[in-house]
Amino acid sequence: MHLTEKNQRDSFVLELVDKMLKGSVRALGKLITLIEDECPGSLEALKKVYYHTKDAYVVGLTGAPGTGKSTLVDRMAVEIKRQGFKVGIIAIDPSSPFTGGAFLGDRVRMMSSSNENDIYIRSMGTRGSLGGLSEATASTVKILDAFGKDFVLIETAGTGQAEVDVIKETDTTVVVCVPGLGDEIQTMKAGVMEIGDIFVVNKADLQDADRLAGDIETMLHMAYGSKEWIPPIIKTIATEGTGVVTLIEEILNHREYLIKSGLLKSKRIRRIKQEIMEIAKNKIIDKINNSANGANQVSDELLNEIMLREKDPYTAAEEIIGNFTEVFQKSHL
Amino acid sequence: MHLTEKNQRDSFVLELVDKMLKGSVRALGKLITLIEDECPGSLEALKKVYYHTKDAYVVGLTGAPGTGKSTLVDRMAVEIKRQGFKVGIIAIDPSSPFTGGAFLGDRVRMMSSSNENDIYIRSMGTRGSLGGLSEATASTVKILDAFGKDFVLIETAGTGQAEVDVIKETDTTVVVCVPGLGDEIQTMKAGVMEIGDIFVVNKADLQDADRLAGDIETMLHMAYGSKEWIPPIIKTIATEGTGVVTLIEEILNHREYLIKSGLLKSKRIRRIKQEIMEIAKNKIIDKINNSANGANQVSDELLNEIMLREKDPYTAAEEIIGNFTEVFQKSHL
Repeated sequence: MHLTEKNQRDSFVLELVDKMLKGSVRALGKLITLIEDECPGSLEALKKVYYHTKDAYVVGLTGAPGTGKSTLVDRMAVEIKRQGFKVGIIAIDPSSPFTGGAFLGDRVRMMSSSNENDIYIRSMGTRGSLGGLSEATASTVKILDAFGKDFVLIETAGTGQAEVDVIKETDTTVVVCVPGLGDEIQTMKAGVMEIGDIFVVNKADLQDADRLAGDIETMLHMAYGSKEWIPPIIKTIATEGTGVVTLIEEILNHREYLIKSGLLKSKRIRRIKQEIMEIAKNKIIDKINNSANGANQVSDELLNEIMLREKDPYTAAEEIIGNFTEVFQKSHL
Repeated sequence: MHLTEKNQRDSFVLELVDKMLKGSVRALGKLITLIEDECPGSLEALKKVYYHTKDAYVVGLTGAPGTGKSTLVDRMAVEIKRQGFKVGIIAIDPSSPFTGGAFLGDRVRMMSSSNENDIYIRSMGTRGSLGGLSEATASTVKILDAFGKDFVLIETAGTGQAEVDVIKETDTTVVVCVPGLGDEIQTMKAGVMEIGDIFVVNKADLQDADRLAGDIETMLHMAYGSKEWIPPIIKTIATEGTGVVTLIEEILNHREYLIKSGLLKSKRIRRIKQEIMEIAKNKIIDKINNSANGANQVSDELLNEIMLREKDPYTAAEEIIGNFTEVFQKSHL
């Protein structure tokens, strides 16, 4: 590519950043898409965006499908906005890109029906690599932050490790459950229990809501007995908005606690550290995948030897890393 | 570490391989654990194991929680064994390591009640990195193969990308669904529809089983209209064993089709290729994480600059990759 082409391309993306910073929602959406697709120029755009971020507060919501998460997130966004903050939503769709569009469509329709047009909602699929998901989410948080959002709500079913990783790195993590999902508590014990800062029992008008809340409390008591922040359990009926004000209150309490204890700062330092490592790793992996005469070329000869058990894949990998080191050195990345 | 220590350590693991190859189930279990934990000597053990593999046939089963997958897998294993084959099961637990033990315990109890003690069942968590899951599963398949299993059944809820990746790389993929899970079909449309070689409507005695089967057929018709292998839809009642013989029949049909069309060979070549790349990538990532003065050390100074918006994380990542290249060159991996 000629240098002028590169310049033109970069300047197009950088212009989008300018428009976004000036408040264009259209530019905002376009920019997120370009960066999610890792279009050329993304890196330059992200670098520029970063200097306009102001540490937006990031709240993660996770819960099994059917817990009413989406409705709850929408209600929360409306309430946060009512309190004078600017808010964006990132909905991570656990399935493939196919549903991404429809899902977003539904959400947008839902939101516009409540006339809250300035709550920005973005749906993200888990396309691409898994590292990709957390990297893309982190980038989107930064863009929304630079756009002026005070709060970013990230919603995910949290079923895969990648999603749990994303949710873990939020400032406040809200775990949503509902009565009657059977082994709900089992799942919680296993994976999400330890990441929840606040627990929500949604659909609290259903039978067994109190028992579920009691079960969670017992478990929290065992796990958090002597800690400073004991996760509160909030009962909500998202469809009616019941309990949402209390939930926001507790999120603000948690934020207060994190700030006063110095934990917010250390959390964010850790997050940046992990993010840097993530970016570096993904860059190196890209490099491996793209290197012309390096790792990406597993020769037919080599494959044949392996199929015939004349060589094993582990030795083959070692040889490839050897080649890669050479390519790596020559190209200086 | 002294060379003699390394030799001792390696020879311990290599002795386990010998015992496993001679038929010790105890050594088999120990070996899988050591390799899953990436204990020193694992690599040497895996290299040795590989030369004893005989291309065991790998069947993947995926379906939402509550579809009766585990029961179905057990019934399938018993039937495959009845037909004179040796069979192993790998159950990938979608949640954290915590449930691993209990789950395995339940399964072992369940199986021993049917007196099929020689069906080996192994439960794996998604601990560690995600690359880790597919690498650990691939290793376990090889060990079971070398142990003499003709069939390896891999069972997973398939909710995360890592699990889908694992299932994708099996020889035959069975997608299990049940009537009455509501948005079951929606989920299927999104992610698993395209990876299924065989579809199972389990709990076929429930209402709406026929409608579900019809829905799947319609979708398959649209997707597979002109392809050579049109995924069959099998109705089963796993708890009673109904339909299991037909299911195994169709798996053997699919295997036949893959062999005759040459697809089995190309599938496996692709699998080995991906596996080599996976091993190489994970090795390089380990290297990054462990390099003493390399990428793992994000200096406080650097972090502070980033927190103050004097530098951005992307530039920081580039600098770290620079350092890493140096370390990489010096150490020759």
